[in-house]
Amino acid sequence: MTWKTAVADVPYGGAKGGIGCSPSDLSVSELERLTRIFTQKIHDLIGIHTDIPAPDMGTNSQTMAWIFDEYSKFHGHSPAIVTGKPLDLGGSLGRDAATGRGVVFATEALLAEHGKSISGLTFAIQGFGNVGSWAADLIHGRGGKIVAISDVHGAIRKPDGIDIPALSKHKAEGGLLKDFKDADVMDQNELLVQECDVLIPCALGGVLNNENAANVRAKYIIEAANHPTDPDADEILSKKGVTILPDIYANAGGVIVSYFEWVQNIQGFQWNEEKVNVELQKHMNDAFANIKSMCKTHDCSLRMGAFTLGVNRVARATTLRGWEA
Amino acid sequence: MTWKTAVADVPYGGAKGGIGCSPSDLSVSELERLTRIFTQKIHDLIGIHTDIPAPDMGTNSQTMAWIFDEYSKFHGHSPAIVTGKPLDLGGSLGRDAATGRGVVFATEALLAEHGKSISGLTFAIQGFGNVGSWAADLIHGRGGKIVAISDVHGAIRKPDGIDIPALSKHKAEGGLLKDFKDADVMDQNELLVQECDVLIPCALGGVLNNENAANVRAKYIIEAANHPTDPDADEILSKKGVTILPDIYANAGGVIVSYFEWVQNIQGFQWNEEKVNVELQKHMNDAFANIKSMCKTHDCSLRMGAFTLGVNRVARATTLRGWEA
Amino acid sequence: MTWKTAVADVPYGGAKGGIGCSPSDLSVSELERLTRIFTQKIHDLIGIHTDIPAPDMGTNSQTMAWIFDEYSKFHGHSPAIVTGKPLDLGGSLGRDAATGRGVVFATEALLAEHGKSISGLTFAIQGFGNVGSWAADLIHGRGGKIVAISDVHGAIRKPDGIDIPALSKHKAEGGLLKDFKDADVMDQNELLVQECDVLIPCALGGVLNNENAANVRAKYIIEAANHPTDPDADEILSKKGVTILPDIYANAGGVIVSYFEWVQNIQGFQWNEEKVNVELQKHMNDAFANIKSMCKTHDCSLRMGAFTLGVNRVARATTLRGWEA
Amino acid sequence: MTWKTAVADVPYGGAKGGIGCSPSDLSVSELERLTRIFTQKIHDLIGIHTDIPAPDMGTNSQTMAWIFDEYSKFHGHSPAIVTGKPLDLGGSLGRDAATGRGVVFATEALLAEHGKSISGLTFAIQGFGNVGSWAADLIHGRGGKIVAISDVHGAIRKPDGIDIPALSKHKAEGGLLKDFKDADVMDQNELLVQECDVLIPCALGGVLNNENAANVRAKYIIEAANHPTDPDADEILSKKGVTILPDIYANAGGVIVSYFEWVQNIQGFQWNEEKVNVELQKHMNDAFANIKSMCKTHDCSLRMGAFTLGVNRVARATTLRGWEA
Amino acid sequence: MTWKTAVADVPYGGAKGGIGCSPSDLSVSELERLTRIFTQKIHDLIGIHTDIPAPDMGTNSQTMAWIFDEYSKFHGHSPAIVTGKPLDLGGSLGRDAATGRGVVFATEALLAEHGKSISGLTFAIQGFGNVGSWAADLIHGRGGKIVAISDVHGAIRKPDGIDIPALSKHKAEGGLLKDFKDADVMDQNELLVQECDVLIPCALGGVLNNENAANVRAKYIIEAANHPTDPDADEILSKKGVTILPDIYANAGGVIVSYFEWVQNIQGFQWNEEKVNVELQKHMNDAFANIKSMCKTHDCSLRMGAFTLGVNRVARATTLRGWEA
Amino acid sequence: MTWKTAVADVPYGGAKGGIGCSPSDLSVSELERLTRIFTQKIHDLIGIHTDIPAPDMGTNSQTMAWIFDEYSKFHGHSPAIVTGKPLDLGGSLGRDAATGRGVVFATEALLAEHGKSISGLTFAIQGFGNVGSWAADLIHGRGGKIVAISDVHGAIRKPDGIDIPALSKHKAEGGLLKDFKDADVMDQNELLVQECDVLIPCALGGVLNNENAANVRAKYIIEAANHPTDPDADEILSKKGVTILPDIYANAGGVIVSYFEWVQNIQGFQWNEEKVNVELQKHMNDAFANIKSMCKTHDCSLRMGAFTLGVNRVARATTLRGWEA
Repeated sequence: MTWKTAVADVPYGGAKGGIGCSPSDLSVSELERLTRIFTQKIHDLIGIHTDIPAPDMGTNSQTMAWIFDEYSKFHGHSPAIVTGKPLDLGGSLGRDAATGRGVVFATEALLAEHGKSISGLTFAIQGFGNVGSWAADLIHGRGGKIVAISDVHGAIRKPDGIDIPALSKHKAEGGLLKDFKDADVMDQNELLVQECDVLIPCALGGVLNNENAANVRAKYIIEAANHPTDPDADEILSKKGVTILPDIYANAGGVIVSYFEWVQNIQGFQWNEEKVNVELQKHMNDAFANIKSMCKTHDCSLRMGAFTLGVNRVARATTLRGWEA
Repeated sequence: MTWKTAVADVPYGGAKGGIGCSPSDLSVSELERLTRIFTQKIHDLIGIHTDIPAPDMGTNSQTMAWIFDEYSKFHGHSPAIVTGKPLDLGGSLGRDAATGRGVVFATEALLAEHGKSISGLTFAIQGFGNVGSWAADLIHGRGGKIVAISDVHGAIRKPDGIDIPALSKHKAEGGLLKDFKDADVMDQNELLVQECDVLIPCALGGVLNNENAANVRAKYIIEAANHPTDPDADEILSKKGVTILPDIYANAGGVIVSYFEWVQNIQGFQWNEEKVNVELQKHMNDAFANIKSMCKTHDCSLRMGAFTLGVNRVARATTLRGWEA
Repeated sequence: MTWKTAVADVPYGGAKGGIGCSPSDLSVSELERLTRIFTQKIHDLIGIHTDIPAPDMGTNSQTMAWIFDEYSKFHGHSPAIVTGKPLDLGGSLGRDAATGRGVVFATEALLAEHGKSISGLTFAIQGFGNVGSWAADLIHGRGGKIVAISDVHGAIRKPDGIDIPALSKHKAEGGLLKDFKDADVMDQNELLVQECDVLIPCALGGVLNNENAANVRAKYIIEAANHPTDPDADEILSKKGVTILPDIYANAGGVIVSYFEWVQNIQGFQWNEEKVNVELQKHMNDAFANIKSMCKTHDCSLRMGAFTLGVNRVARATTLRGWEA
Repeated sequence: MTWKTAVADVPYGGAKGGIGCSPSDLSVSELERLTRIFTQKIHDLIGIHTDIPAPDMGTNSQTMAWIFDEYSKFHGHSPAIVTGKPLDLGGSLGRDAATGRGVVFATEALLAEHGKSISGLTFAIQGFGNVGSWAADLIHGRGGKIVAISDVHGAIRKPDGIDIPALSKHKAEGGLLKDFKDADVMDQNELLVQECDVLIPCALGGVLNNENAANVRAKYIIEAANHPTDPDADEILSKKGVTILPDIYANAGGVIVSYFEWVQNIQGFQWNEEKVNVELQKHMNDAFANIKSMCKTHDCSLRMGAFTLGVNRVARATTLRGWEA
Repeated sequence: MTWKTAVADVPYGGAKGGIGCSPSDLSVSELERLTRIFTQKIHDLIGIHTDIPAPDMGTNSQTMAWIFDEYSKFHGHSPAIVTGKPLDLGGSLGRDAATGRGVVFATEALLAEHGKSISGLTFAIQGFGNVGSWAADLIHGRGGKIVAISDVHGAIRKPDGIDIPALSKHKAEGGLLKDFKDADVMDQNELLVQECDVLIPCALGGVLNNENAANVRAKYIIEAANHPTDPDADEILSKKGVTILPDIYANAGGVIVSYFEWVQNIQGFQWNEEKVNVELQKHMNDAFANIKSMCKTHDCSLRMGAFTLGVNRVARATTLRGWEA
Repeated sequence: MTWKTAVADVPYGGAKGGIGCSPSDLSVSELERLTRIFTQKIHDLIGIHTDIPAPDMGTNSQTMAWIFDEYSKFHGHSPAIVTGKPLDLGGSLGRDAATGRGVVFATEALLAEHGKSISGLTFAIQGFGNVGSWAADLIHGRGGKIVAISDVHGAIRKPDGIDIPALSKHKAEGGLLKDFKDADVMDQNELLVQECDVLIPCALGGVLNNENAANVRAKYIIEAANHPTDPDADEILSKKGVTILPDIYANAGGVIVSYFEWVQNIQGFQWNEEKVNVELQKHMNDAFANIKSMCKTHDCSLRMGAFTLGVNRVARATTLRGWEA
């Protein structure tokens, strides 16, 4: 997480914390009391300039609202203490779409580097959750053809491009992706090796491995999921000449907009959605340019370039602060 | 006040406080000492994220300057502790005109909804103080005709439209409104029932009541004053088909720019006047759209729509924070 | 310093502090320890809303980084406690060029007042350090001709205008200014009395005095250095009709961008370089207009106008806060 | 309360606060949650040097424990924030007996002034609750004869003196006072007019009034209850030559030992019971001497002397602090 | 540690922390810098009402002085932040002897319970370090006969009693215990099974085990060391009828006087040595009485009684604070 | 002052501060406002564990009351922030007499060292102000004969000893010392060379100098004033064998009881006068013993011994805190 925020040039570090419990086994009232007591125990360790929690597995915007409310009893009204809050309590416009939108901005930056654009290219997308559906929708809107898409229940394909707005409507009305009329059902496992220009894994880690990497037919892989490519696959794909946009850059849109939410809280002033998106694009473009510059200096892959960028930034700041003394 | 800030989407609640005294009976030195001692007693209860005083009856920007100075002795340099400060101490550009300008933005939003604009319509304005004079000036500048206007000493009318800049100059030079040459004197009581498209009461509460409501000839009433329409009048006018823009929305420009002043202090950076006005217009337009949306959902008057909007926002935030637990 | 920040409308006062030592005699480790212990002793006296140190003689961005790091041990992460920080720790883009760029904006404002612009005019610049080289570069870029320029080792001239980018490249490659091929060597002392439209002393104080003032041939003097014109010279030049842009205004670009750095830290959000420069120009233009207004009111020189502006602003704020009581 | 603490020379003022509810209708868990939320709301208003709650009607040592626990979440370990805590959490030894013991010390001081002592005198005590039973026990131990005693269920008498330890044992075993074998049952209403040297009302207010005051046969009345003597009775008894020791002095033992508990918490060190009792006696004796001195100066009753003492002390402190300025 | 402080009725809990390093490998300057940086990292976690460090293995009064000095930079002058400080910086008189003196008070309490006193009994003491030498000296002063004593280098015995002041002088002059003239050298391993009334192990843990327990000839064992008796030995000795005074009580003198040091710092007033010793004796006597009472209630050994006392006290406080809610 | 508190073993340093004004030219209201504004400016620099003001020239207990009141507005109720407060606001019993009483304790300690006591010796006292009159009264009460005494208006003598209680009564009734009937008037200048055992200068500095030192007939000089003996006199008197008790010890009673006042405020508990006096005597006796020990170690005068003691204590504490690192 520290390297991801460093790559994105967000003035944050990285940390994780949690409670050993199964939220689905607890009532809402129990969850609220658990969250409040947890907050009472850590309120002196977090802080708007120290450590800013955000939702992750098992927590959501309601959890953040409780933390914000409890923390504020001790330190006064402090919306900036958490991000991922509900809009009504100081959340940011555009945060819901942020990771998906960031993936698309990253894809555009990569393609532009290769003299291409989304319009007219073909895409296969694994996953139709929050990230995948936003990415699909934005790619569709920019003229890209989504030729295959999957979710946990199945996969569909259509060489001419799936009608994403229609698919979203179908799902919103309770339909399963695999039951979408205007496309052909396909084997989920085939999705990753489907013929396409750009493959975007938006689901689990390790899906690209030494069993299927050799068969991938895409020219570009955008790692919207965390760690979708295992080290074996990384090597195989590199040798094949596939360009991989690494996760610590590609899916940084979420943390970037979390940072924007914090900025809005610190400034006491909400940004409109357009401003959020424009600033997100700037951050994604600048980061891509900086990664690319690292790649040129060190003649390395995008993944190595991204990590080098992140580690260098942290090292430089650490040295300047004088922590060696 | 809480509902007004909620309608305007300003992240404030509402509260009032005061000292039982007659400021006009006190010397400036006594007022300053009284203000400072009052501030010493409440400095732990107010705060830049807790409660931010602003001028109201019997207080002004000088009073705010004293509170700011005294509070800062206890809590360090804190310009954000009050709004309505003098410009030289961190006040906002455009605050003087804010309520009047907000009234005009509100009027424009309402007229646009009805496919009209200020240009070419006729207006009667009750009151030529801070709010009324700014509103008149801005309406005049937009091509509206002010056909009648009054103040505490009298009223004048001119069917072709009064020359507001000339009237302002006349008043600035010490003339009484009723002595303005280029218009006819009229009975003050006639103003509210004058023939016009838009009536803007900018003076006292309760001026529209069951004695005169039936005779109102305007199609639109913009409540620039607080509570100018009493419940009886409200019913009579509604039945006549007069559209009333309610006070908690129409005159919110003052508190909105107070909020902007606070934002500028929090951010340590002054906005220019254009920025203040653009942001004010955005807030007024967004609020009107939200009220209108409430009216559609609940099929109700603008007044009821505004209250519903305000109460709903506070209720939703309260529920999300979990105060029920 | 208080008058300079008041002229520039920056919400700061002015103060200086220091340690009696010779930094060049100390090792880096000794400097770091000395800086940290000094910070431990003063950490309760400085503060992001109290007193914000910035580099001056014998200190630099590394020194600020140490102060920031040590201060943050006591008060939590506080980048706004110092300005002039390294970019990697929250410094501002454009700060390096700020004084030089401010000098050029000031020059443009003055010339515009006289119906002129940089383009086509001739300039002599004393000093080619941080301020002088940035000023020369920006003037060159705007079409001004630098006909003479000097540094501590010598001076050169070229009536058609020196090629500043080439000169900068020559210096960056280790060459001495006086060895620059594409210009003629000249006597350093001649620089100030060189034929030119605008003379910009960017080096030491007191260089214009009763020995050379009468011989100055420029029509405009821009005081980029502190106190380059002594009182005698001031009188002589005024009588000759030379227009002097005083230092407390002309070289305020540095403190203005220091203020912008603080604003960015307070807001938690970095400005891009374009925004920094645009805001800097606004501040320089507004200040010039305000000085000019003072000159008209009091029929005085720009220097007297600038001081009157600064002193008046502080006096007005002091009175409003009620410190007389 | 302010006058009582001033008489007792305890460095406290007086204040009351509460929640409108019926504790007996709430479960223990509800009481705990109510107490904690109440504490969250007032934690910034109370403080170990500001306002120190203690149990009163409807609250007890457990309530104080909850307040202490909740307050400490906000301000760190703070046992001194409440008094009347359980011994295990920093309560004071001897607090349970404090009011009763204080009544006896007061009685001894008064009798000594008249050249008498408890030993050999006869006492009638109204009330056998916490105060009355401790007073009875201590008087018995000092050789006084309790010739009559009552509780809410009845009254008993024995001219030779009731065996108090036996009576206490009888009650501890669940017996009713009126069923105590070794004494005669009597009419409760007769208790106050019983033949005795000293009458100690330890129950309700207003029990001595114009219906029974004339019949009182005691020479001394010790007001262990609050306001047992109404103004009419006060006048009647004074005329009869009965000496009344006023409540604001006589029952101050409780608040004095509350203060001692706070001192022990502030000092981080527990006093043994002997020290508590010795210091309590010193405070009671000093207060009596000071009241007596007031009586001599102003030639007034003990009640008036006590109030004069209290008001004078507060007035003197107020004047010295300069609140008049 | 929590149980030990609970047994001793000291209002502390228990916690340990440390740095993984070998102090003997570091220079004094390195130790000081390490200690200061450690303090900078934990200064927000310790506190005079939160957690109070004291010396343990590898640290001493100088270490405490550095922590106190560094902590005070952050929180102001705070001598109470550590105990075991040098006397010149707020340390307590009598702290050096505290553990040994506490052992002797414990021994006296135990013997008194059995109708005996130190005078005339025979003692074997394992260890002549800080604890053992103070215990020996105080026992000698009370008329007890030290018939055998050992240190890491050897052991000596003398049935008539060793002259402890002479032995101390011998050691202070650099002599080894085993070279002391006026006693016989003996096998170190024999010490624990030496003929004597009271055996006091003051050295390592686990010295009494199933290899030697059956041979112990003392009637009383005072556990001055931590865990000198392993569980096997505990059982064997109990069956033999040997009375063991458990370590969590017997060697609590050190932490008790650490607490007294804290109290003196909190009160801002130093106790003289006599006061320290009197209060120490009170604490030791009270704790013994309370343990004894537990033993009677639960019919258990002194060890079990001590643990029951400690655990009960913590449990009762925890329940009263309401942590179950 | 630092050396004086070190000698007295009071945990204070020394510092002085002031306002350049003439209190006698100001009204009470002006003095109060000046004191409050001064306190507002320094409230962050003083503190109950940082710097504790006490009255000195031109200030008194009322001044301290104002500082306490104003400081408490910022930091909450803080009686310990000043000493020398009025009794009604937390001042200490016995503080008025403290310096004089300390002088007498010091005298007793010195005489005891020489096998003597006050009883029966003869004393000459210069000064009958606060210090001199208390010293005289206490010496008289201990059986010493005051054979001569002076004030600013004159001097009296009586070989058999002046009746001090009678003299005090005479003065309290408005009489001048020199008009006291029961003694002979003498030349003021003769007082210092009067025949007596002990000379106590309680007035100005430098009164013993090379003009009169050779004629001093006392065997002991107790420096109750500050610097009564100039360096020349010091040398002359030493050679004559006169024993001088130096001022930094002899008149330390005032600061010691100031410290006791602070302790009482910190502890929240008032000491009775007896306790104050007993503790004062302990401090004076301990300090004398420590000075004497220094004199023996270094074979030096009492003055040099006192300074050595003070400097050594500060040096040792400084070294232990590690300020050299």
